Amino acid sequence: MVGNPFICKCGGLLEVVRPWKGIDSEKLKQLWDNRLSERMTVYASGVWRYKELIYPELPEPYITTKYEGNTGLYPTETIARYTGVRQLLLKAQSENPSGSFKDNGMTVAVSHGRSLGYERFTCTSTGNTSSSLAMYAALAGCTSVVYLPGNHISASKVRQTAAYGAELILFNGTYDDGIRFSRQYSEPLGQYVCNSMNPFRIEGQKSIVYEMAHQLRWELPDWIVVPGGALSNATALGKGLLELKQLGFIQKLPRVAVIQAEGASPFHRMVSLGDTSLIPEPQPMTIASALNIGNPPSWRKALHYIIGQLQGVTASVTDEEIMEAKGLIDRCGIGCEPASAAPVAGLKQLVRDGVVHPEETAACILTGHLLKDTEVIPYSYSPSPIDLSLEAVNGLLSRG
Amino acid sequence: MVGNPFICKCGGLLEVVRPWKGIDSEKLKQLWDNRLSERMTVYASGVWRYKELIYPELPEPYITTKYEGNTGLYPTETIARYTGVRQLLLKAQSENPSGSFKDNGMTVAVSHGRSLGYERFTCTSTGNTSSSLAMYAALAGCTSVVYLPGNHISASKVRQTAAYGAELILFNGTYDDGIRFSRQYSEPLGQYVCNSMNPFRIEGQKSIVYEMAHQLRWELPDWIVVPGGALSNATALGKGLLELKQLGFIQKLPRVAVIQAEGASPFHRMVSLGDTSLIPEPQPMTIASALNIGNPPSWRKALHYIIGQLQGVTASVTDEEIMEAKGLIDRCGIGCEPASAAPVAGLKQLVRDGVVHPEETAACILTGHLLKDTEVIPYSYSPSPIDLSLEAVNGLLSRG
Repeated sequence: MVGNPFICKCGGLLEVVRPWKGIDSEKLKQLWDNRLSERMTVYASGVWRYKELIYPELPEPYITTKYEGNTGLYPTETIARYTGVRQLLLKAQSENPSGSFKDNGMTVAVSHGRSLGYERFTCTSTGNTSSSLAMYAALAGCTSVVYLPGNHISASKVRQTAAYGAELILFNGTYDDGIRFSRQYSEPLGQYVCNSMNPFRIEGQKSIVYEMAHQLRWELPDWIVVPGGALSNATALGKGLLELKQLGFIQKLPRVAVIQAEGASPFHRMVSLGDTSLIPEPQPMTIASALNIGNPPSWRKALHYIIGQLQGVTASVTDEEIMEAKGLIDRCGIGCEPASAAPVAGLKQLVRDGVVHPEETAACILTGHLLKDTEVIPYSYSPSPIDLSLEAVNGLLSRG
Repeated sequence: MVGNPFICKCGGLLEVVRPWKGIDSEKLKQLWDNRLSERMTVYASGVWRYKELIYPELPEPYITTKYEGNTGLYPTETIARYTGVRQLLLKAQSENPSGSFKDNGMTVAVSHGRSLGYERFTCTSTGNTSSSLAMYAALAGCTSVVYLPGNHISASKVRQTAAYGAELILFNGTYDDGIRFSRQYSEPLGQYVCNSMNPFRIEGQKSIVYEMAHQLRWELPDWIVVPGGALSNATALGKGLLELKQLGFIQKLPRVAVIQAEGASPFHRMVSLGDTSLIPEPQPMTIASALNIGNPPSWRKALHYIIGQLQGVTASVTDEEIMEAKGLIDRCGIGCEPASAAPVAGLKQLVRDGVVHPEETAACILTGHLLKDTEVIPYSYSPSPIDLSLEAVNGLLSRG
């Protein structure tokens, strides 16, 4: 390991692998059931509730938590009809404290960094990762440094991060340049790196499927569908599912699907072609900003778990399909950012293509909150203000 | 009652008053403890968990819930030091599904409307009320109509509301004009009114202090501090506290304080002068948009509960004090919209003025999420992008 503790000599990313001795799934289910009524301890968290499968040896005082997870799992008939499956559930990781699924992993990464004595945390990002990182670093009483690629500045996206007190460093170059710099210099700078190369983020993100299984009394739907950007979410889903099965928490593995945006779909392209080597997309381009990643850091892990171990499938969807699905999710009263709608659009395609059977059930994971990306929301009202009267209002309403 | 079911003949607002027979506080505490582990029923909600004190007779099938409430209660030493009290808690209603405390009340109002057979819900608002209303109406499979004062359009504030599918009607006039129109015409239009004149919203919002008491094992801090805008939050706090005491859930009533923004502080002005009649502020003006209300609809109820029954206090704070407090709350990793910071700024003032003793403890209620109002967040980074190098980054960090 040179310069960064998470990079293997082979150039790949390290991963947490445990021998899993002495796990009694029935006893743990009982313990986790009991913890559901916690409200003011670390076990009130939807991540740390499952500490035994996430980071068993971490001493409690290092844990920095905002009771992340604990998100709604909503059945919706409208989306079931839209996608064409018998029953559909939306798992709203958008309800996390910073507004995205990144919190599930970040609480573990920051807690791990604190246990190593770090007081400065870092990542390269202009989106959900940086705001989650900055929030947990602040909560831990530590500082955070966020590298912003100069060609990708969007004021609204960095404001949340800035609010939590992150130091923002604008640089010449791309996202990948920032990642490379962190790999090389995070150690001499005394910065703990929280990009998705950090394996403890994957460990934390496994809790999304743990919590979903718990909510469903350990019987998962036939399919679980996630969006694919950096692919840490897909990796965590795959790793988490295999552990649940291996350790006896669930009897049957669901099928999994990873949905990318057409303009940023190098993983889907690789899988479709039967390749095992990813060719990065040099100019990723999608309205779903959280999926706008051309060189997904966790592609090897995702390939191993999702394709190799779980025989999962992939698909890509257009921006138009994403926005249509988002509109529907929003109008159901659930709501999400565009990236989160890709699984719904993808599931519809998989049903149409006969990959998913109409009699099957599915859950889609919503990764980010509606409020994360309000700029893309179309809206309209009567072009000029009306004078309020019963007639005028009735006229407008009957027109609609 | 003419035109609107919530307006008394006297012109005041109706209120839910119950005889409270047969309440056994110890039995209910046990029942509510048991419900803490619910995840997929209506009792998983941080509002409906307390159904026996909120709306006991409503049949479950009418309940439209997004598991609202269930928000974090965070002790923070930084804010305790800043305000000057011994211990400080922040109750983060900002963590509600639509991002504000309005969800606590709106789930009850919309459920009540459904029980009456309404399928169209309405309010006048450009802010948190309208997005909460639109979300619950959509979740219930109903429609919503939101009246937008033409002189107060802020695109970013209505986008969330529009996303949930609300029909937006822009009109000539003020917020007060919209309220007047709803009072008169909601019945003929078949619209169920969800502005704060709706007494079921108050009933739902009582759950904020119920949940806080539950989290603290029924021992509240010495002071509870809320922001004062429309004053429904203050009313619900007062009503909720008195019920908890009267019914034997808590032994000791905390003191309460309502904090207004200086540019929109007609309630504080009235109380300071010892008056019992509110003179509206014709041109309210504060950066805390959720407090920018000149004629608070619930002022009579707030006067009755907060001042008359609880001998509470009021204060007003400047926009500068609000933004300073907000900056600190954000940098603690908790985060909030500007209005939510008023209680922290107000508490600091009350300690300085000797009203609150430094040995006392306090809880401030955060009403809205950081993401609700990112436009007001100041941020900065190195004026031009740097070339990434160890020296350049070290130089920037040592400067900061």
